[in-house]
Amino acid sequence: MAKVLIAQGGGPTAVINQSMVGAVLESRKFNNVELVYGAFHGVRGIVDEEFLDLTQETTHNLEMVAETPSSALGSTRDKPDLKYCQEIFKVLKAHEISYFFYIGGNDSSDTVRIVSEEAHKAGYPMRSIHIPKTIDNDLVENDHTPGFPSAARFVAQAFIGANLDNYALPGIYIAVVMGRHAGFLTAASALGKKFPDDGPHLIYLPERVFDVEKFLADVKATMDRYGRCVVAVSEGIHDAEGVPIALKLAKNVEKDDHGNVQLSGTGALADMLCDEIRTKLGVKRVRGDTFGYVQRSFIGCVSDVDQREAREVGEKAVQFAMWGDMDGSVVIDRTGFYSSDYRLVPLEVVAGKTKVMPDEFIAPSGTDVTDAFRMYLRPLLGSGMPDAYRLRQNLVSKVLAK
Amino acid sequence: MAKVLIAQGGGPTAVINQSMVGAVLESRKFNNVELVYGAFHGVRGIVDEEFLDLTQETTHNLEMVAETPSSALGSTRDKPDLKYCQEIFKVLKAHEISYFFYIGGNDSSDTVRIVSEEAHKAGYPMRSIHIPKTIDNDLVENDHTPGFPSAARFVAQAFIGANLDNYALPGIYIAVVMGRHAGFLTAASALGKKFPDDGPHLIYLPERVFDVEKFLADVKATMDRYGRCVVAVSEGIHDAEGVPIALKLAKNVEKDDHGNVQLSGTGALADMLCDEIRTKLGVKRVRGDTFGYVQRSFIGCVSDVDQREAREVGEKAVQFAMWGDMDGSVVIDRTGFYSSDYRLVPLEVVAGKTKVMPDEFIAPSGTDVTDAFRMYLRPLLGSGMPDAYRLRQNLVSKVLAK
Repeated sequence: MAKVLIAQGGGPTAVINQSMVGAVLESRKFNNVELVYGAFHGVRGIVDEEFLDLTQETTHNLEMVAETPSSALGSTRDKPDLKYCQEIFKVLKAHEISYFFYIGGNDSSDTVRIVSEEAHKAGYPMRSIHIPKTIDNDLVENDHTPGFPSAARFVAQAFIGANLDNYALPGIYIAVVMGRHAGFLTAASALGKKFPDDGPHLIYLPERVFDVEKFLADVKATMDRYGRCVVAVSEGIHDAEGVPIALKLAKNVEKDDHGNVQLSGTGALADMLCDEIRTKLGVKRVRGDTFGYVQRSFIGCVSDVDQREAREVGEKAVQFAMWGDMDGSVVIDRTGFYSSDYRLVPLEVVAGKTKVMPDEFIAPSGTDVTDAFRMYLRPLLGSGMPDAYRLRQNLVSKVLAK
Repeated sequence: MAKVLIAQGGGPTAVINQSMVGAVLESRKFNNVELVYGAFHGVRGIVDEEFLDLTQETTHNLEMVAETPSSALGSTRDKPDLKYCQEIFKVLKAHEISYFFYIGGNDSSDTVRIVSEEAHKAGYPMRSIHIPKTIDNDLVENDHTPGFPSAARFVAQAFIGANLDNYALPGIYIAVVMGRHAGFLTAASALGKKFPDDGPHLIYLPERVFDVEKFLADVKATMDRYGRCVVAVSEGIHDAEGVPIALKLAKNVEKDDHGNVQLSGTGALADMLCDEIRTKLGVKRVRGDTFGYVQRSFIGCVSDVDQREAREVGEKAVQFAMWGDMDGSVVIDRTGFYSSDYRLVPLEVVAGKTKVMPDEFIAPSGTDVTDAFRMYLRPLLGSGMPDAYRLRQNLVSKVLAK
């Protein structure tokens, strides 16, 4: 009789529990599976042997948890090195785990790769599968990544509202969106546009060099044209040398265990860009928001396409492990407009690699997206996307000032 | 034959267009009404004679606009003085307006009051009605104000997600919520709590003096108890002398035309509070978000109760004007659990006054709300509120570290 272990790593998403529940329920269908464990707080919980017996959880509650954003098992920012992975393997072996599923991004897939190698070297019979998730949409091989569509939907809806607000009270509005290396989530702001003069009028992605003087000129040109300006900025924008714009101005630079500078959880980048505009352009009404953690964990703004796919990658991971008897990373292929399918690729194909936006998704101006990107993203946002309407311009003749 | 003029003032809300469309459609039902105008950008559009003929707008499009957040007619931050109001009256008279409806907060109601007095003094037959709206919920006489329930729903939902995110990756999380003088919107964060250890664990309102040392002690006590801490902070928190905490640290202090300091559209307050915690408590994982403009204009997170009531205050305004033949401000009464009704009060009762949270809504600790507040707010959030679920704690025995 086999034991299954499931864990969740990295930043939470709105649908990561769908993948966990998909893997749990699918595992519980197999006759050879005796127990299904969940590890608390990812790999940290594995080395600490903090496990939950998910075989004793009701199907009903699992379905409710699946609809709940963020990682129900808890997560971790630990990025295990070889020694850490050997500790993980030691615990998996001690608990006689036969199937190990880790839901996470490219760092997590690298952990699965190393653990898989350790098991192989030790001749220990265990299947190790990486289940994809990241709001950054930066996993290679995947058409897109579970968690991204729901975060993209939040960003698009937030920009629909921000544009309407800026239309009512004109001025300059900047919102900073998550995404360290890949601009997909920031680019999703463009899906909030409907009328030709709708914002975001300018979109700044980490795939292009950010130049403050060019930025100011872009904003001024937009103000001259529309009398208002809505800007979407990725937290990962950087100069020609690759230095993050956020780093240039941060007083207290915090680095996480991956050696990355903290870009989220601070409004510094938005505030600095607003200050630049106030000082250099002399515009008075300048507002900066930072979407922050709300964009990845907001409850009640989830793509149903994303929910279904996140569930399926969890289910497929179990099927690949049980029937395929292979280690690997589950990837999503696009097979129609819109349909998708799944396959398993070797872990080293995905592990530790980062995908960024291809050139055909970015307009030549560098501050907009293309229709190819709109075609790519729109079906992922799911059904029931809200839509904004305007009053038509039936102007009344003036009486006093003719 | 009579002409009607409708305008929208102040900060947009998610349902302000419901009130506008309610007033337009109700006006169009009356046989004596020939034309229904809308003024662009509130009182600014009136003095500039920038009117839209809403009699030529389709019912279908009006219904679509009603569902769209933010002020479809545009808004303004102008706070008219007597001279400005005399200009308004001059234009209303020149266009032979018989019914003037202004949707806005306490500043807007004061404008209606002065315009009403000017018309009375001139012996000009015109009805002037103030239609309530504000996310701050700070209009006197009203049980609550249209726009507040939807913003409150956004805040509650955002905190459900933020709490889940903080549960997955423990640390300290602070989110700053709009509300200069009244803490209702910040207090709405408490409606995101379900389990006893859910955040927000601490809620800071402008109705209570904010002391930085007390704040640090509160956060430390929460960390000691739960190993994590979620905090809701009103942008309007101030010290014992009434000086806004945000003002103490802002480099570029911007004042609007009402003489108010800019508190929104900057992440400075959240960043400063995070810095205090990092420096004084030595906690590493501290994150600060500022909900910003998203909380008042987000599309797709609207209370249906709020939508219906916002529609009704617009309709009732027209009915009071046409049948009652009186000037005044429409107010909402609570008549059951949950039902509401409307009445017209003299403009001077509401104009320019501010309501804050009553003591019975604030816990003795000063950092939580009472059940009385939960009973007050819950029905306003409307139907279909999302709900968060957790895995139950079926712990597995350790094998290695017993």
